[in-house]
Amino acid sequence: MTTVSIVNVTSYTGSELLRLIVQHPAFEVISVTGRSEAGKRLVEVFPFLRALTPVSSERRERRPVDPEMVIVEEPAPSDLAFVCLPHAAAAEAVVKLVAAGTKVVDLSADFRLHDVAVYEEWYKHIHPAPDLLEQAVYGLCERYREDVRNATLVANPGCHTTTSILALSPAFAAGIVEPNVIVDSKTGISGGGRKPSLGYHFPEQNDDASAYSVTGHRHMPEIAQEVVRAASDGGHPLERELRITFIPHLVPMTRGILSTNYVDLKVVSGQPLPTTEEVRALYEQYYVDEPFVHVVDQPPHTKWAYGSNHCFIYPIIDQRAQRLIVVSCLDNLVKGASGQAIQNANLLCGLPETAGLAVLGVHP
Amino acid sequence: MTTVSIVNVTSYTGSELLRLIVQHPAFEVISVTGRSEAGKRLVEVFPFLRALTPVSSERRERRPVDPEMVIVEEPAPSDLAFVCLPHAAAAEAVVKLVAAGTKVVDLSADFRLHDVAVYEEWYKHIHPAPDLLEQAVYGLCERYREDVRNATLVANPGCHTTTSILALSPAFAAGIVEPNVIVDSKTGISGGGRKPSLGYHFPEQNDDASAYSVTGHRHMPEIAQEVVRAASDGGHPLERELRITFIPHLVPMTRGILSTNYVDLKVVSGQPLPTTEEVRALYEQYYVDEPFVHVVDQPPHTKWAYGSNHCFIYPIIDQRAQRLIVVSCLDNLVKGASGQAIQNANLLCGLPETAGLAVLGVHP
Amino acid sequence: MTTVSIVNVTSYTGSELLRLIVQHPAFEVISVTGRSEAGKRLVEVFPFLRALTPVSSERRERRPVDPEMVIVEEPAPSDLAFVCLPHAAAAEAVVKLVAAGTKVVDLSADFRLHDVAVYEEWYKHIHPAPDLLEQAVYGLCERYREDVRNATLVANPGCHTTTSILALSPAFAAGIVEPNVIVDSKTGISGGGRKPSLGYHFPEQNDDASAYSVTGHRHMPEIAQEVVRAASDGGHPLERELRITFIPHLVPMTRGILSTNYVDLKVVSGQPLPTTEEVRALYEQYYVDEPFVHVVDQPPHTKWAYGSNHCFIYPIIDQRAQRLIVVSCLDNLVKGASGQAIQNANLLCGLPETAGLAVLGVHP
Amino acid sequence: MTTVSIVNVTSYTGSELLRLIVQHPAFEVISVTGRSEAGKRLVEVFPFLRALTPVSSERRERRPVDPEMVIVEEPAPSDLAFVCLPHAAAAEAVVKLVAAGTKVVDLSADFRLHDVAVYEEWYKHIHPAPDLLEQAVYGLCERYREDVRNATLVANPGCHTTTSILALSPAFAAGIVEPNVIVDSKTGISGGGRKPSLGYHFPEQNDDASAYSVTGHRHMPEIAQEVVRAASDGGHPLERELRITFIPHLVPMTRGILSTNYVDLKVVSGQPLPTTEEVRALYEQYYVDEPFVHVVDQPPHTKWAYGSNHCFIYPIIDQRAQRLIVVSCLDNLVKGASGQAIQNANLLCGLPETAGLAVLGVHP
Repeated sequence: MTTVSIVNVTSYTGSELLRLIVQHPAFEVISVTGRSEAGKRLVEVFPFLRALTPVSSERRERRPVDPEMVIVEEPAPSDLAFVCLPHAAAAEAVVKLVAAGTKVVDLSADFRLHDVAVYEEWYKHIHPAPDLLEQAVYGLCERYREDVRNATLVANPGCHTTTSILALSPAFAAGIVEPNVIVDSKTGISGGGRKPSLGYHFPEQNDDASAYSVTGHRHMPEIAQEVVRAASDGGHPLERELRITFIPHLVPMTRGILSTNYVDLKVVSGQPLPTTEEVRALYEQYYVDEPFVHVVDQPPHTKWAYGSNHCFIYPIIDQRAQRLIVVSCLDNLVKGASGQAIQNANLLCGLPETAGLAVLGVHP
Repeated sequence: MTTVSIVNVTSYTGSELLRLIVQHPAFEVISVTGRSEAGKRLVEVFPFLRALTPVSSERRERRPVDPEMVIVEEPAPSDLAFVCLPHAAAAEAVVKLVAAGTKVVDLSADFRLHDVAVYEEWYKHIHPAPDLLEQAVYGLCERYREDVRNATLVANPGCHTTTSILALSPAFAAGIVEPNVIVDSKTGISGGGRKPSLGYHFPEQNDDASAYSVTGHRHMPEIAQEVVRAASDGGHPLERELRITFIPHLVPMTRGILSTNYVDLKVVSGQPLPTTEEVRALYEQYYVDEPFVHVVDQPPHTKWAYGSNHCFIYPIIDQRAQRLIVVSCLDNLVKGASGQAIQNANLLCGLPETAGLAVLGVHP
Repeated sequence: MTTVSIVNVTSYTGSELLRLIVQHPAFEVISVTGRSEAGKRLVEVFPFLRALTPVSSERRERRPVDPEMVIVEEPAPSDLAFVCLPHAAAAEAVVKLVAAGTKVVDLSADFRLHDVAVYEEWYKHIHPAPDLLEQAVYGLCERYREDVRNATLVANPGCHTTTSILALSPAFAAGIVEPNVIVDSKTGISGGGRKPSLGYHFPEQNDDASAYSVTGHRHMPEIAQEVVRAASDGGHPLERELRITFIPHLVPMTRGILSTNYVDLKVVSGQPLPTTEEVRALYEQYYVDEPFVHVVDQPPHTKWAYGSNHCFIYPIIDQRAQRLIVVSCLDNLVKGASGQAIQNANLLCGLPETAGLAVLGVHP
Repeated sequence: MTTVSIVNVTSYTGSELLRLIVQHPAFEVISVTGRSEAGKRLVEVFPFLRALTPVSSERRERRPVDPEMVIVEEPAPSDLAFVCLPHAAAAEAVVKLVAAGTKVVDLSADFRLHDVAVYEEWYKHIHPAPDLLEQAVYGLCERYREDVRNATLVANPGCHTTTSILALSPAFAAGIVEPNVIVDSKTGISGGGRKPSLGYHFPEQNDDASAYSVTGHRHMPEIAQEVVRAASDGGHPLERELRITFIPHLVPMTRGILSTNYVDLKVVSGQPLPTTEEVRALYEQYYVDEPFVHVVDQPPHTKWAYGSNHCFIYPIIDQRAQRLIVVSCLDNLVKGASGQAIQNANLLCGLPETAGLAVLGVHP
C-alpha cells in the first residue's frame, strides 16, 4: 500500500480525494491536515463519511480512509501527499514535503505556470518557491504522461483550464486554427469552494446565471501556456501572439464545467475549410486509447461526467463564420481537480493510470 | 400617501417588502435601517433594485422606493413601520416606535405568543416588553381582521405557522377532529434568512433534503396557541390538551412552504366519518370570499404561489386510518412574511386589504 | 377597456400573458384558443389560476382574466390579439385576424425577418403570408417605438435575439466595433416550451448544462438583421459582411437568459482603444430614460429580472484581446416574450408603455 | 463471471444497473431488452455510456458492460436476470425466466406482497403468477439475508418502502411502539421514472414541492406487511390492527428519499418513556455490522447517499407528544432500487454482499 497525506482536507478537493480513495485499491490515507478544523475527527466535518461507520473487523479487511481519523496541523511522513491549499500557502507546504522526499500532487496554481513573471503578474505576489518550478511537471496526463511518471512534484491543472486545453490542443497541434480564441466556460458552484458566501447562498444562486472575473481570470494564462505548447509540440508553432479571451460563468448546478471554445480556422485560399467529420476524426485520433477523454458526435452534457473522471469533447465547424467550435465538459471536482490528482498520483506511484477511477458518471 | 419605515431592511423580509411596496399604490418608503450595512445605498446591497434606475421626471411621477436611499441606523418618523429584526432586538425597536405613535407590523416572534411564560420557555430569554403584549394583535387577517383594523401593533405570524394554522383552523373550529396533530412542513431555503452558512451553501443544499429543529421548533407553540383558539372561537373548545408534533424540513427550492397536516378524526360510534367532499365544503365555506386563501380539489404546488400572497389548501379524509390530512402551501416570503405584513398594514391604515397584492404567482 | 384574445393560450407564452394581464389596468381577456385543450376551462389547464377563485362581486369589480373561461378553437372578435402559435401556423392565424381589423402582436418568428428568402432558408418552408411582411413592424420598442405605435401587426422579437440585440446595438450604432461577433447564450428551460420531452425531463436537466442547435439556430439571422440595421441607423453602416456565430446553451433554471456577446473592437492606428468607462457611458446614453433596459456596472444576474420585464446590460473592454464583451440578461418569458408583447400592445393601443409591467423581479 | 440479463434496460433502474455493474467485479451483462428501443445500441439510448468508448484491448481486459450492445426483445439465457418492467408485465417475464432456471431479481411490485388479495386490491388486476409468490423472497437483505441466499426469485423492495421499513423495524421488533404510524416521504423525481410528462417537466418541477397519491399509494400495504412481520419476528406481535397513513411528496431533486416516520410510543403507567439515547442504542444494536445501514446522531441528508447504496437512520423521542420520530434517507435508485438489487444478486450468487457497492455517496 502507498501511504497518503492530504493537506487541507477540509476543502472540497480534500473531501473529494477521500471519496475517491475509498474506492482506490492501493492508497491508504494516514494523515489529514486542516488548520481551522484541527482536532476534529473527519466524520465531524464530513458527515457523509458516516457511511464508513466501523463494522467489525472480519468484514472489513482494509480501510483506505478511517472516518475517525483526527485532523492535525502538520502532515505525517507518507509516500505521497496531495496539497489542497490555496496558492502561496500551497507552495510553502510543497517545499517542506519535497524536501522530506514525499511525492507531491499540488492542486493549487503555484506550479502550473512555467514563467515566474506571468505567475507574479496574475497572482499578485512573489513566487514562494521559484526553484521548484523547474522540476514541477504540469499534470495533464493526456499531454505529459511520461514526464509525470518520472516526476516528484506534479502541478495539477485547474478545472476550467483542463476543460479548455483538452478541447483546444488537437486543433492547435494540427495547425488548422489561427491564434484567436474565445473560451466561454460555465461552471457548477462547487468550483467556488466550500466557504459559504452570499454569492453562493442557495436562495441567491438557485435559478440564477451570471458571469464572473470578467476583467481577467487567472486560468487564462494557464490555458494560453498550454495552447502555445500544444501548437509547438504538434509541429505548428504559433506565428502570431495568441489572442485569447476567457469568461467564466456560474450556473446553478453543484458539479460540472461546460466550456464552449471558439477559434478562427486557418483559411488557405483555394482550399476548402475542413469539415466537421474531418475535424472529429482528427480529434478521435489525438485521443485514441485515452481512458478518460472521449470525442463524441453530439453536444455533450455535464451530467454524463457527474462524479467521474471522464471528459467529453465535441468539435464542429461553423462553415459560414469559418470557425472551429469545441464544446467540452467534465466534473470540476474529479477530472477538473481530485480525480485528475489521483490519475497523476497513479502515474507517480507506478500504478495503472485508471486505478480507483474506473467508474461511470452518476446519471441521471 | 402613507410614509413607511423598514427596520433592518437588509434581511430577506426587508427586501421583499421593498419589492412589494414598489407595486403598492399608497405606501412610500422614507427610511430604511440596517446596522451592518448602514451608510450604503439600497442598490448597493440589493442590485436587483437597479431595475428602478432613475429615469427622468416626466416618466415617473411617484417613487414608492428610491434605490439610492441611504441605509441609516435609526428609522425616521413615519406613519407606519415594518420591523424585520430578529426576536428580542425586535421588541426593543417596537417599544420605541409605538411610543412615538407609529403603527407597527412586527415580523419577529416577539408579540405572537400571548403567554409570556411560553415565550420565555421557547425563546430562552426574558420578554423585553411584556406590557405591549396585551395590545398586540396576532396578524392572521383571515382570523382577526377586525382586531387588526383597530390595532397599533400587529404581530405578523411565522411562515410555517401561517401555513399550518390556515390548514387546521376550519377543522378545529368545526369540532370534527381530536387534538392529536402532526405537522410535517417542507420549506424553501430563503426561510433560513440571508446570512450565508455551510448548510445553505449551494453545493450542499442543491439536490438535498433534510429535517431540522427535530427536538422542538419555536413555531410549534404558535401553531398550538392558534389551533386552541380556533377551536374555542368555533364553539368546540378542546376537551383534552393538544398533542402536537411539528417537524420542519429543508428542500432545495428558493421559496415556498408545503405543509402536510395529519389530525385524528373524531370518531362517534354509530356515525360515519365525514367524507372528503364534506370536509372540502366545510373548508370552502370557512374561507369563502377570502382573497388570498383558496381551497382546492387537487394537491397544491408551492410554485402556484411563487412570489404571490396566495395560500392553497387541500383537505382530504383517510377513511382507513380515520384521519384528516390537510396539505397547504404558500410563499414563505410573501403570505408567510412580507406579503402578509403588507396585508396587515393595509388594514392598519384603512386601505383595501388587497392593495399592492393582487398579483398571481410567477408560473412556471 | 381593451378586449383581448390569446391564440394558443396553452403555451408558456400564453399562460404568461394571462399572468401579466391579471395585473394590467386596461386589458380584458375575452377569448382564449387552443386546439388540443379546447373545451377545457383555463383553470383546468393552469391550476395556478385558482388564485383567481371567484370571490363575491362586491370585492372584485373587474376581472381581466376569468379562470373559468372555456378554451375554444377560434378566437372571438376583439380589439387586440396575441398569437402564441408556432411559426407557419401563426402566420395563418394572423392573416385572418388582420383581415378582421384586429390589432395583432405575433409572438412567432413569422414576421420578424424582412427578407422572405432568409426566412425560407432558415424555416424550411414557403412563407405563408409574404404580403403582410411589409406592414409588420419588428417589435423591439427600444428601437422602433414610433413604428409600433402606428402599426397593426407587430412581430414580437425572439428571446435570445432580444437579449443580444439590446446588447450589441449601441456598439454598432456608434461604429466602434468590427462586424465579427460571437454570441454565447445560456437559457432557462421554459424557453423550450411547455411540451415535455426527455431532454427537459427534470432528472435529466437538473444539475446539467449543454449546448444545443450548434449547427445553426434560427435566432441567428434575426440578430444579424438587427445588428446591421443598428449600424446603419446609427450612421455607421457595416463595411464588410457580418460574420456571426450564435450558440445557445441549456442551463438548469426555469427562467432567464444570460447572453455573453464578444465583438472585435475597431482598431485605429494611433488611437487608444475605448475604455470600459467610455463604453458604459455610451451605452447609458443610448438607453437613457428606457424604463426596461438598465446599463449596470457589475456582471448582471438573470435572477434580477425573474418574472419582470427588465433587461440588464453590462459592457466591458478586454484591452488585451481588443474586444468588447457585453453581458446581458432578462427573463425569457417576460422581456423575451410575453412582457415585451404587452409592451408592444400598450403602444399599439395608445396606452402608457409600462402599463401592467411596472414590477420588480422576484428576488431572491 | 456471472452472466447477467437486464430486462427493460431503458428504464432508470435499468441504466442504474448498468452503471453499478460497470464497477462490479463478477457480473457481465450479456443481454439487454427493451421493447420500444429494440434494435438500438445501448450508447444511443444512454449517451453517458460513451465513457466506456472502446479502447484498445491491451488496456481493458474485461468489459462488464459493452456500450455497443444492441437492445433486443427477449433476454438471452443467462445465470441471472434483473427484471425492470412495470408490475404485471414483470410477472410474465419472471415466469419464463424462472422456468428456464435463471435466478431472478424482480424490481417490480409483483412478488413483494405475500397476500394475493392485498395485491389485487391495490394493483387492480389479477395476479399473473400466484404460484410463484410462495417461493419469492422479499429482498430486504437486512431482514431476510439467509432466505435470499437460498432463493431463486427475489422481490426487490420499493424505494419508499425500503426507507420506511428500515426506519420502523427496530422499534416494532423491540415492542416499544403502538401500531399507529404516519409516514411522510419526500422523493426526488427520478423515482417517477424515465418517461417525460408535464408534472416532471423541468420548468414545472424546479423550485416546486407537492404531495401525490394522497388517496392511497401502493407502497403502503408493503410497509404494513413488513412492519407487522418485524413486530412478530421480534417477539412483539401487534395487539391491534396497524393504523398507517403514508403520503409521498415530490421535491425538486434528482435522487434521494427522505422519510419522516411518526409512531406513538407505548405508554406504560409508572414507567418513563424511553429516551432518544436509549432508542438510538437499540437501533445501533439492531443494525450492528450492517454495511449499508447507518444509525446516526444528527438529522441525515439525502445527499450523503447520492449514488451509493447507503441508508442513514436517525431516531428521536418527542417526550412532549409521546412519539418516536425516525428520519431515514437513501438514494431511491440505488438502495431504493438497483443497488439493493445488486446486493440481492450478490447473495443469490454466493458473492460478498457488498461486491460492486463499496463506494461513498457523491458529495457535495
